[in-house]
Amino acid sequence: MLFISCFVLFSTIQSSFGSQERHFKWEVEYMFGAPDCIEHPVMAINGQYPGPTIRARPGDTIVVELTNKLHTEGVVIHWHGIRQFGTPWADGTAAISQCAINPGETFVYRFKVDKAGTYFYHGHFGMQRSAGLYGSLIVDVAEGEKEPFHYDGEFNLLLSDWWHKSVHEQEIGLSSNPFRWIGEAQSLLVNGRGQFNCSVAASYGNSTTPQCEFSGTEKCAPQALKVVPNKTYRLRIASTTALASLNLAIGKHKMIVVEADGNYVQPFAANDLDIYSGESYSVLITTDQNPNENYWLSIGVRGREPKTPQALTILNYIPNSDSKLPTSPPPVTPRWNDYAHSKNFTKSILALMGSPKPPRNFHRRIALLNTQNKINGYTKWAINNVSLVLPPTPYLGSIKYGLRRAYDRRRPAENFPSDYDVMKPATNPNSTYGNGIYVFSYGTTVDVILQNANALSENVSEIHPWHLHGHDFWVLGYGEGRFSEKDVATFNLKNPPLRNTAVIFPYGWTALRFVADNPGVWAFHCHIEPHLHMGMGVVFAEGVNHLPRVPDEALACGLTAKRFISGNHN
Amino acid sequence: MLFISCFVLFSTIQSSFGSQERHFKWEVEYMFGAPDCIEHPVMAINGQYPGPTIRARPGDTIVVELTNKLHTEGVVIHWHGIRQFGTPWADGTAAISQCAINPGETFVYRFKVDKAGTYFYHGHFGMQRSAGLYGSLIVDVAEGEKEPFHYDGEFNLLLSDWWHKSVHEQEIGLSSNPFRWIGEAQSLLVNGRGQFNCSVAASYGNSTTPQCEFSGTEKCAPQALKVVPNKTYRLRIASTTALASLNLAIGKHKMIVVEADGNYVQPFAANDLDIYSGESYSVLITTDQNPNENYWLSIGVRGREPKTPQALTILNYIPNSDSKLPTSPPPVTPRWNDYAHSKNFTKSILALMGSPKPPRNFHRRIALLNTQNKINGYTKWAINNVSLVLPPTPYLGSIKYGLRRAYDRRRPAENFPSDYDVMKPATNPNSTYGNGIYVFSYGTTVDVILQNANALSENVSEIHPWHLHGHDFWVLGYGEGRFSEKDVATFNLKNPPLRNTAVIFPYGWTALRFVADNPGVWAFHCHIEPHLHMGMGVVFAEGVNHLPRVPDEALACGLTAKRFISGNHN
Repeated sequence: MLFISCFVLFSTIQSSFGSQERHFKWEVEYMFGAPDCIEHPVMAINGQYPGPTIRARPGDTIVVELTNKLHTEGVVIHWHGIRQFGTPWADGTAAISQCAINPGETFVYRFKVDKAGTYFYHGHFGMQRSAGLYGSLIVDVAEGEKEPFHYDGEFNLLLSDWWHKSVHEQEIGLSSNPFRWIGEAQSLLVNGRGQFNCSVAASYGNSTTPQCEFSGTEKCAPQALKVVPNKTYRLRIASTTALASLNLAIGKHKMIVVEADGNYVQPFAANDLDIYSGESYSVLITTDQNPNENYWLSIGVRGREPKTPQALTILNYIPNSDSKLPTSPPPVTPRWNDYAHSKNFTKSILALMGSPKPPRNFHRRIALLNTQNKINGYTKWAINNVSLVLPPTPYLGSIKYGLRRAYDRRRPAENFPSDYDVMKPATNPNSTYGNGIYVFSYGTTVDVILQNANALSENVSEIHPWHLHGHDFWVLGYGEGRFSEKDVATFNLKNPPLRNTAVIFPYGWTALRFVADNPGVWAFHCHIEPHLHMGMGVVFAEGVNHLPRVPDEALACGLTAKRFISGNHN
Repeated sequence: MLFISCFVLFSTIQSSFGSQERHFKWEVEYMFGAPDCIEHPVMAINGQYPGPTIRARPGDTIVVELTNKLHTEGVVIHWHGIRQFGTPWADGTAAISQCAINPGETFVYRFKVDKAGTYFYHGHFGMQRSAGLYGSLIVDVAEGEKEPFHYDGEFNLLLSDWWHKSVHEQEIGLSSNPFRWIGEAQSLLVNGRGQFNCSVAASYGNSTTPQCEFSGTEKCAPQALKVVPNKTYRLRIASTTALASLNLAIGKHKMIVVEADGNYVQPFAANDLDIYSGESYSVLITTDQNPNENYWLSIGVRGREPKTPQALTILNYIPNSDSKLPTSPPPVTPRWNDYAHSKNFTKSILALMGSPKPPRNFHRRIALLNTQNKINGYTKWAINNVSLVLPPTPYLGSIKYGLRRAYDRRRPAENFPSDYDVMKPATNPNSTYGNGIYVFSYGTTVDVILQNANALSENVSEIHPWHLHGHDFWVLGYGEGRFSEKDVATFNLKNPPLRNTAVIFPYGWTALRFVADNPGVWAFHCHIEPHLHMGMGVVFAEGVNHLPRVPDEALACGLTAKRFISGNHN
């Protein structure tokens, strides 16, 4: 047996009317798994890897009582794409929104989901996301409402990448001098399943990898997508990769992209889909091909020279056997450095008519140059020459209660030198550590120009998907080289897509706009796990004084704990 | 080159008069090391593994500002053998004396050393000791005072065992069902140095292990003990092994044992020295052998069928080359299960005349039966049928401030069923988790009978070295089988040794006496790291109400943090 069948959830879900509280009791612990058929510790929730899928409806309150069953590590969970209006302490970012949950302790995440869409959750402390701490969070449309497109069934594909080296060892290597890069992933995973020691498509090529043979009980066997001919299916696709930018294609089936990051987009057809870490999409496919055949679904690496095999599964037309292999080999990912292809895809994403439009003007613009740097011989990433090292006391508490020593009070730079040549390695690649914050007045409209540049080596500039917590932003445009004032004229203010993650292409810039209307402290960072670990992020704060209070549990560490304990006992 | 030279510190140390504060700023982080010549992450202090040696004099105050530079793990350091009179919060036991120090945070350990002796320090959270977090703490006699024995120079040997599997993976295996035992160590280390891929004595046998060849720069090369003929040397030997009981011998040199666990003992001669995890000894050797030769110092495993090669170095008579191998092969460790040999050695340890004597009578006696058990299919160790799971809120704070929900209020059993057959596997091997405490009235004299028993399998009973925090105890006696009232008559009240660690032999009992005169909360546990991880420990509390206050830093987590934060902000 080659495939096991993927659960098909038809779109008519029966549920009670009105919004609900949905309660979950979760325990996080390490267990032995075998995500790519090779045994390895994985971070699991209630013994499941990936974690359980949450399904909810707009207006529902999600309550997750999260108990840390790890032995010596703290833990948090970030609800990626959920804006946490009024509950910034539930954003699940260690050192920003809350104290990491200590071993044995429980933290209650309570937050509303306000918008239908395809979301996910994941660890946000150290590199615990890479260790397997993730799962899906799907918000269906409200009872009685309809999506702006039709489909007969859906599949949920959570994509990730997997290493055989433990994240602990990866972290040590990244923090070492000499620097040790984590290298390319051993495997790509779909819903936590990949195959390192075999290939389901070995018979097509002349690879030395053996053909997979599964008994059907293996947790690493690919899940076949069982479909009925002549129907329309929604694929919900989200990427929580540590590193890999991915491309997904289905043999002989076009995809219609309809949703990105929990926002509807103007439907457009694509032969293949680029997806960066932190992004989510919904695509529709119609099962209108020869019903006597099955078809490949393949996922490959983009943007880095691929050393990781494709992830593969099949679209299994019922009643064909799910072991019946397609007649042709799996679709091949576009050339890894075909950036024209990537840009074309990304620029095709535009808001669905009727979506919220950006304010016409901005109040403040900050430009964030991301560079690779050295600090005392250690390899780092920096933004405007500051490499982020999070403070031990979470910002939300320290800002709310005015603890001035809790973080760097100097405001980080809002721009970078006008003579900085983004096309070349920096002449002076040294930078500094820091944890200063960008403070936005409540309700202001902020433009962010993400500026890419050459890395430490010549002729290297990488892709970085930047993810903003607490907000969706409008992507106003992408450009080549150094951003300049005249590029403003090219901004799309008519139908820019709303997203929570946006990519910067090599040597390019990306312009974003958002309204600072969500009181809290919000991470904004490259979603590539080792890049964030190496300092590639910034912190935004807005309207913290509008918050009535911060729950005790989010304050029970660092200087906030000391401040409230001090003098309160004898 | 085979050996590098070990630093010889002659006993005349110049220092200022009177007691001192000795300040240290330490950062704990993982780095890549190669303790047994195979690269592996190790826990290091200021980039050193093992951690820096502290030297002090009685009355000195040690101040260690410990910063946690780990990415997601908490950390603490326990000062093994230091009784922490008046500073129980500095004992460095996570969940007992303090909150684990969170990543990025600093905790200041400030405590007095009051007694000359050979001590050490190590991690006491999860299995971080096994990861390499340890170092030596040597207290020399006070200025102007003399040891009750003469020596011309000294060497410090900190013994440990080393695995190639990470402690994280070891912890997961121990907590898994089915249970995965950590197995025997790959290597034994002396001062953090061992040789897995070669042997310095390969030329003597017909082993397939190659002869070691070192250039002299390798950090895993053994340190030769450079000695001058016809002198007396003190070897300070301490064991921080995770598992292994050890035996140390020096070719053709007798050892005179003079100190155990920081207490002087009646000097006695031994051909070889048994040392269990948590113990320390000083022995004297006289370099009265043929000065044209060098001699082996070898260390092997006792009490478990040895699968780990001997640790080896040489006693290098100056001016011989330290590469000159001894004429005979290294001394062989006594047969692993020659318990008669072990008992004979252990029972030879008696207090030096003039040492403090135990009170003649006790106020309370508790008997602690240690058994291997199953709980819901998980393999555990239990004491009087309770397997210890430490609570997230440290006891010291929760007892001091009366937080009744912080731990199990039911008092654990002070005895075990009178019909329990210690010679056979338990008929019902199920036990329960718990974290109740033994509370002793301040100043009372407590007798503890440690009772060994058969493990889960027939005909298996293991050695367990039990370590008490906050106290030395008198070892009143050892016996075979089940302890009974008539054994009291055999107690040694005349010259029992004062120790902080005592072993129980297979199927035997060990009787201890101590005075509960040190306000605080104190761990008492098997010093075998995986056994403690599996629940083999208890917690003693005494005179906590005598403590004026507990420092804020020791309270800044769990329910103590919540209690003091709650209602103290808006």
